[in-house]
Amino acid sequence: MPYVNIKITKEGATAEQKQQLIQGVTQLLVDVLNKNPATTVVTIDEVDTDNWGIGGVQVTELRKNK
Amino acid sequence: MPYVNIKITKEGATAEQKQQLIQGVTQLLVDVLNKNPATTVVTIDEVDTDNWGIGGVQVTELRKNK
Amino acid sequence: MPYVNIKITKEGATAEQKQQLIQGVTQLLVDVLNKNPATTVVTIDEVDTDNWGIGGVQVTELRKNK
Amino acid sequence: MPYVNIKITKEGATAEQKQQLIQGVTQLLVDVLNKNPATTVVTIDEVDTDNWGIGGVQVTELRKNK
Amino acid sequence: MPYVNIKITKEGATAEQKQQLIQGVTQLLVDVLNKNPATTVVTIDEVDTDNWGIGGVQVTELRKNK
Amino acid sequence: MPYVNIKITKEGATAEQKQQLIQGVTQLLVDVLNKNPATTVVTIDEVDTDNWGIGGVQVTELRKNK
Repeated sequence: MPYVNIKITKEGATAEQKQQLIQGVTQLLVDVLNKNPATTVVTIDEVDTDNWGIGGVQVTELRKNK
Repeated sequence: MPYVNIKITKEGATAEQKQQLIQGVTQLLVDVLNKNPATTVVTIDEVDTDNWGIGGVQVTELRKNK
Repeated sequence: MPYVNIKITKEGATAEQKQQLIQGVTQLLVDVLNKNPATTVVTIDEVDTDNWGIGGVQVTELRKNK
Repeated sequence: MPYVNIKITKEGATAEQKQQLIQGVTQLLVDVLNKNPATTVVTIDEVDTDNWGIGGVQVTELRKNK
Repeated sequence: MPYVNIKITKEGATAEQKQQLIQGVTQLLVDVLNKNPATTVVTIDEVDTDNWGIGGVQVTELRKNK
Repeated sequence: MPYVNIKITKEGATAEQKQQLIQGVTQLLVDVLNKNPATTVVTIDEVDTDNWGIGGVQVTELRKNK
């Protein structure tokens, strides 16, 4: 039944890594709250680095200064 | 005034179908709660099948096994 | 598979009305996109009128001026 | 037309402060993108400090250690 | 940097269980994508069972029939 | 600590404008609630005009009739 939304910056996460996130979160909800995986929905939003800010600065800029 | 977000997998929903979803949800809120359609906002997120998991498995994989 | 989130102001929607919204949205997704109701998740957020603004004004204030 | 959701921890924001957030965000969207305030929707979610984590720790615990 | 939102039905999750969810998701993002836990934000929404539907039916009703 | 999500229609917002939105919202949260900008996360979703409806009509159609 749970619904989990994971937002990450769009920086090359592979299909395999996204499968690991989906599997890991679903298993976590089984382990901690005994939730039914069959109705656990996980979605991943990959957000452009121009569209993500922290500390008032776009990640695109933060990456340049790194 | 209501805000509705519909998340579906990105599997070819047409502009016409999305119009039907928008219209249908807006009308539903009029019928059930007498909400003002003029300020009812509906957004549709189409999510890549690698980025959607159910039962701990990516929809991309589920579709292959179907 | 779809996930729908409906945000409305907290102004007395009954359990029955919320059931109608859940049923109506689920049926709409069957009718328009042939989605499987068994894995269609709908959540309703009821938001305090102090916490909802339109036109830059809290709904609490808008209701007073109505 | 924009929809803005602000999530903050539930730590006593007053109605007046929430009005300032709604007004400020709406005005910002006018100033930057010339958006129509009449259809700009802002909602504020106040999240319990047990339900908010950063660095893997609940804010409730972080506040204790502050 | 990631932001994760976990929606579960409001059915008695303890503070300790919520801490485990926050810690588990944060660690998962470190393990899979090497994300910085210090800026990983996790929020948990606990949704009333009248406000959560699956298969077109409120969880409140599903629980009764279980 | 706050998390802000701004949804706008995908109609050509520039990187500079998105930086202004991120900066403006972060500063607003400092000014009104004295929040720490270093852990304030802002994400911007740009939504296709076919996928955004108001008054039951897709923005794509509204733009044509304007």
